[in-house]
Amino acid sequence: MKIHTLISPVSVEDLYFAGKTTVVVDVLRATTTIVTAIANGAKEVIPVNTIGFAMKVSGNAFGGKTLLGGERNAKKIEGFPLGNSPLEYSEEIVKDKSIVLFTTNGTKAIVRAKYSENLFVCSFNNIESIARELVELNNDVEIVCAGSHGMFSLEDSVCAGCLIDRIEQYTDNISYSDASKCSAMLYDKYKENLLEMLKESEHGKLLMSNGFEKDLDVASRVDIHHIVPVYNSGVIKSKDKIKTNG
Amino acid sequence: MKIHTLISPVSVEDLYFAGKTTVVVDVLRATTTIVTAIANGAKEVIPVNTIGFAMKVSGNAFGGKTLLGGERNAKKIEGFPLGNSPLEYSEEIVKDKSIVLFTTNGTKAIVRAKYSENLFVCSFNNIESIARELVELNNDVEIVCAGSHGMFSLEDSVCAGCLIDRIEQYTDNISYSDASKCSAMLYDKYKENLLEMLKESEHGKLLMSNGFEKDLDVASRVDIHHIVPVYNSGVIKSKDKIKTNG
Repeated sequence: MKIHTLISPVSVEDLYFAGKTTVVVDVLRATTTIVTAIANGAKEVIPVNTIGFAMKVSGNAFGGKTLLGGERNAKKIEGFPLGNSPLEYSEEIVKDKSIVLFTTNGTKAIVRAKYSENLFVCSFNNIESIARELVELNNDVEIVCAGSHGMFSLEDSVCAGCLIDRIEQYTDNISYSDASKCSAMLYDKYKENLLEMLKESEHGKLLMSNGFEKDLDVASRVDIHHIVPVYNSGVIKSKDKIKTNG
Repeated sequence: MKIHTLISPVSVEDLYFAGKTTVVVDVLRATTTIVTAIANGAKEVIPVNTIGFAMKVSGNAFGGKTLLGGERNAKKIEGFPLGNSPLEYSEEIVKDKSIVLFTTNGTKAIVRAKYSENLFVCSFNNIESIARELVELNNDVEIVCAGSHGMFSLEDSVCAGCLIDRIEQYTDNISYSDASKCSAMLYDKYKENLLEMLKESEHGKLLMSNGFEKDLDVASRVDIHHIVPVYNSGVIKSKDKIKTNG
């Protein structure tokens, strides 16, 4: 299994992902929030790459049961009832709802990878489930770090490294790209204190200065949810729900 | 001094660099080759970002004393007398010549950063000279890793980390971006054996499979040249020569 890691999706075109098995990581905060929403019973999350498209989709589609969420540069968007804090996506708020989500980096990364044959959403919160899914599939893997405006994000690379570490516990038939090696090394350095790592990161500091310190705590928790969110035909659903509810 | 590191220049526009102090790193092999050529008495190196422009420039410009060099995906280009191996750029070949150089990632990165107020060319071969220059200037610094087709390259990040390590020996007034932190950690991991690191890297393996193993040895040598190659108005010259010869 070859594991390749992209520090940011901006260096490749959409078609780069055609036929691939891809995992998108945006620890602060899009993939953490998506995993939380799905775990709390949201019917689906619809990731979008423009605010205009978010407005359009949230209008009459999906039986009117949509909720609009997102952020731009860590700040709430006017007219959007929900931001991008996982704490906002409680069961009372999201159960059975379709969430239309726009974020600066994370949802764009998912949309960029839309032609993947398999496309999964990963955070520290559900990392073991994603690792097992990948091992079962036994395909080459592209881990896409959402990054920040096309640049390297410490927390996404550390999470990619954590995922690689988990996969290594099931198989040693792995080859690594340079970026995968780098991610594995970063995880090794920070694994004893992921929350501190988030607080040290550039995006973590930005979130703290905007009053979102608690989000870092949520994002740092490993394996609190056992779900595999899968993107398919424009929506993200839990893999189990796809199997059982069609 | 804020030190920012770009894992690849493709995530930013040319104007991003306006007014900045920038260092371009492409260990395998463009910046190693440029440093070698300048150290061996080349009058200047003219980095270009297309093969067509290389052909054009090498025609009648620069008093006919030009030599055309470069590679595409580690292979020589038809009609170019020189490739991109530093071993080709000996004193007998390059003395007093203007070298027009096209490479897959490195010269494109330099051209991308052309609007920088100060733009330096760095490899392991001349790292101490570059570090001292930056400390003297005392500006914020952008270290641009050329990377590989927009993706992360281990050897360029390790070299960026080495440069940061050298700067730290002169000042502790530094703040780090996430990517700078990552590069510093990578250097710390690999500093005892840079040649092994090059052999482990994706691009190192590609070069070895094309018969360029000796280039890795040259590229891994620290501080064998004490020069500061500076880009200005389309050409790279040694800083001392700019001062003394105008």
